[in-house]
Amino acid sequence: MKELPTYVALVDSFRKLPGVGTRSAERMASSVLEMKEEDAFEFASAIENAAKSVHKCPNCGLYTEDDLCEICKDSNRDKSLCLVVATAKEAVAFEGVNDYRGTYHVLGGLIAPAKGIGPESLRIEELKSRIVEEGIKEIIVATAPTLEGETTALFLAKILEPFEVKVSRLGYGLPVGSSLEFADSLTLSRALEGRRSL
Amino acid sequence: MKELPTYVALVDSFRKLPGVGTRSAERMASSVLEMKEEDAFEFASAIENAAKSVHKCPNCGLYTEDDLCEICKDSNRDKSLCLVVATAKEAVAFEGVNDYRGTYHVLGGLIAPAKGIGPESLRIEELKSRIVEEGIKEIIVATAPTLEGETTALFLAKILEPFEVKVSRLGYGLPVGSSLEFADSLTLSRALEGRRSL
Repeated sequence: MKELPTYVALVDSFRKLPGVGTRSAERMASSVLEMKEEDAFEFASAIENAAKSVHKCPNCGLYTEDDLCEICKDSNRDKSLCLVVATAKEAVAFEGVNDYRGTYHVLGGLIAPAKGIGPESLRIEELKSRIVEEGIKEIIVATAPTLEGETTALFLAKILEPFEVKVSRLGYGLPVGSSLEFADSLTLSRALEGRRSL
Repeated sequence: MKELPTYVALVDSFRKLPGVGTRSAERMASSVLEMKEEDAFEFASAIENAAKSVHKCPNCGLYTEDDLCEICKDSNRDKSLCLVVATAKEAVAFEGVNDYRGTYHVLGGLIAPAKGIGPESLRIEELKSRIVEEGIKEIIVATAPTLEGETTALFLAKILEPFEVKVSRLGYGLPVGSSLEFADSLTLSRALEGRRSL
């Protein structure tokens, strides 16, 4: 059976998603073909709408549909405390903890010399501006406990020395080499409590 | 963090796919947000195009972008031999075997009284017409080795008795209770060889 071009294109699209191999992509594409046409169109619209409406908050880098994200606009959040993460979805994991009331700053990645990612490609200048403008007193560097995460944390501690800001690092409870995104709330809560100065 | 409505809608859409739980759906939705806007639009178009272009062959029920599917149009296929499957993706699995040169007939499901699916909701009348019109001499009932698959096979054997057609059943090599879709080519090849009359 010659593969149908639109089916092949759809399998390729699904295969670009994280954690989706060829077999899974084929199952997903088949299930789209089994859908009612209007359901498939609704699915396509959901992707288009999200891509159109959601953008990064120019202040912290979290996802938002507005000019500023909900957390940056929220006067009840503690602006003196800022949690620095590599990606927006890691910030979502910390919101699940419920006892964190500070703000976030998304770096947009981690320093990785082997992949040619230097500090200049991360949102570090924006963080410096925010320290001054928002009066940040403490920064919790919540990068993953990996080589790249540690490198980024140490670099931040160094570069933020001239500022009057306490820089701490998530420490307690995170198994080394793991992915932040999949950590449970309790582990994240312990990690917040057990943070240590750099 | 209040969830963004377009993001939530996208997560819901992904969650409807087979084998995708909440966590996977969230990862997929996040990866769409991380895509360049044009890539996300291309993904949406791939879904729309497949939903628009692909439909079921009116003769055998396989997916096609044309009026008839490639196999029904192919004069090199052995029209006297027809393999009956529950769904189109199971037919795709048999095409992977390479030594099957007959045609297919997609029932569109299996008889499942418990779920209220009776023979009348399957494409059985269409199969009868094809036996006469295409001169089918042998029908291989390739339904899964489950209760519903066996029921459907026995029902077909019974209802096709008045026709001069040999009805056989996939038998050899398929572990009971398994899913046809995930069987490897060798197992499927053995199952074809070891088919038995009903």
